Amino acid sequence: MKIVRFVYKDRIYDGILEGGYVTADMSLPAKGKVAVRDVRLLPPVNPSKIILVGLNYADHAEELGMERPLNPIIFLKPTTALIGPEDAIIYPEASCRVDYEAELAVVIKSIARKVKRSDAAEHILGYTCLNDVTARDIQKSDGQWTRAKSFDTFSPIGPWVETDLDPSDLKITASLNGEMKQSSRTSKFIFDIPYLIEFISGVMTLLPGDVISTGTPAGIGPMLPGDEITIDIEGIGKLTNHVRKG
Amino acid sequence: MKIVRFVYKDRIYDGILEGGYVTADMSLPAKGKVAVRDVRLLPPVNPSKIILVGLNYADHAEELGMERPLNPIIFLKPTTALIGPEDAIIYPEASCRVDYEAELAVVIKSIARKVKRSDAAEHILGYTCLNDVTARDIQKSDGQWTRAKSFDTFSPIGPWVETDLDPSDLKITASLNGEMKQSSRTSKFIFDIPYLIEFISGVMTLLPGDVISTGTPAGIGPMLPGDEITIDIEGIGKLTNHVRKG
Repeated sequence: MKIVRFVYKDRIYDGILEGGYVTADMSLPAKGKVAVRDVRLLPPVNPSKIILVGLNYADHAEELGMERPLNPIIFLKPTTALIGPEDAIIYPEASCRVDYEAELAVVIKSIARKVKRSDAAEHILGYTCLNDVTARDIQKSDGQWTRAKSFDTFSPIGPWVETDLDPSDLKITASLNGEMKQSSRTSKFIFDIPYLIEFISGVMTLLPGDVISTGTPAGIGPMLPGDEITIDIEGIGKLTNHVRKG
Repeated sequence: MKIVRFVYKDRIYDGILEGGYVTADMSLPAKGKVAVRDVRLLPPVNPSKIILVGLNYADHAEELGMERPLNPIIFLKPTTALIGPEDAIIYPEASCRVDYEAELAVVIKSIARKVKRSDAAEHILGYTCLNDVTARDIQKSDGQWTRAKSFDTFSPIGPWVETDLDPSDLKITASLNGEMKQSSRTSKFIFDIPYLIEFISGVMTLLPGDVISTGTPAGIGPMLPGDEITIDIEGIGKLTNHVRKG
């Protein structure tokens, strides 16, 4: 099942996408369903928090010249950074180097506090694509990663939450203006999803709708105003955004 | 004016504290006002995000052996870490060193995006106390600060939002079991509040209720289960919490 949020005639709906049509949880004003091309898709989730994992593919740790971590290194993005499919990524004046980072994101279904990895699956609603947009120059100069990753529009997510998916070995790619830049498989995670949920829920309570993004593989690189960036994850779909000047 | 949130007879109210009595925005079931000793105060805000500033007092940067930063270093705490006055700080099993950090917190009144420092004041609702509880050992081993500062209960805040206050030169202290451990003045900020609002709102849009915590002075140190920690800020009041084992 593909869970969507969308705007239709100036109203926001939660709904389901099937066969090119969206159906709202509450009935649409006109008829039961509407062609997806006639709506604007929003971020498919409305989380209280977005937790991201750094360095979760060994090849990405290598390209950054960083050691493989002993435990997941986590950080947060503010919800004000969220944008949906086809929304613009705004290149901030404060940065000279803004990178894409293709990531598989896990959406939480139910309150999770100190969950064992063996019980993690029951707290998962589904999966979506997330682009962990990063001002690489600011990440380096600050040392702490938060500011570099928290600019408005720096968290494209979507296009929907896929609920029926085994996430253990999915192809994940990022393409810039149609040219493939990142290509890996989720089987190359250093820390798998059940472990991440155990680890993170041992720190902070996870709430329904919260997002855990699982890190990016090798091949990160810069985007420029005018570029088109697409994250494509097997079994989910494509998240495409354009970059424009702030 | 002192803005509070509180529980009375199992219901949550927003209200005002005056002369030992709380008055709710919507009328209380019994009578117009209730003695504050008969209610349980909650965190006085319900933010979408909590932004904190590291190393904003020169003396604290020195005691950590860190250089004075060229710009504010920011990080986020999840809202699941919030607790109110008198709530328990839970000492997590994952840490052997949990520190208090007394901070003045700014509460945002209206949407703020790319605000100039000269216009910052109009976006401020008021001020409160925040204890930026930190697992110091995890902060060091992770490098990134997020996990160390994100455990449930690691963001005591309150007891109320004081709206009538000049924050430019307030005494701020932390006392552990009645013994003063931190004592400084907000006039010693490296980056003042108008600049912090300009800097942070240039990165991320601030929403009503969002919290910016302005950093801690020298004198940080460990707490143990059984300890009582009090943050006291001139013109606001005291935020007291107890530490207990998880």
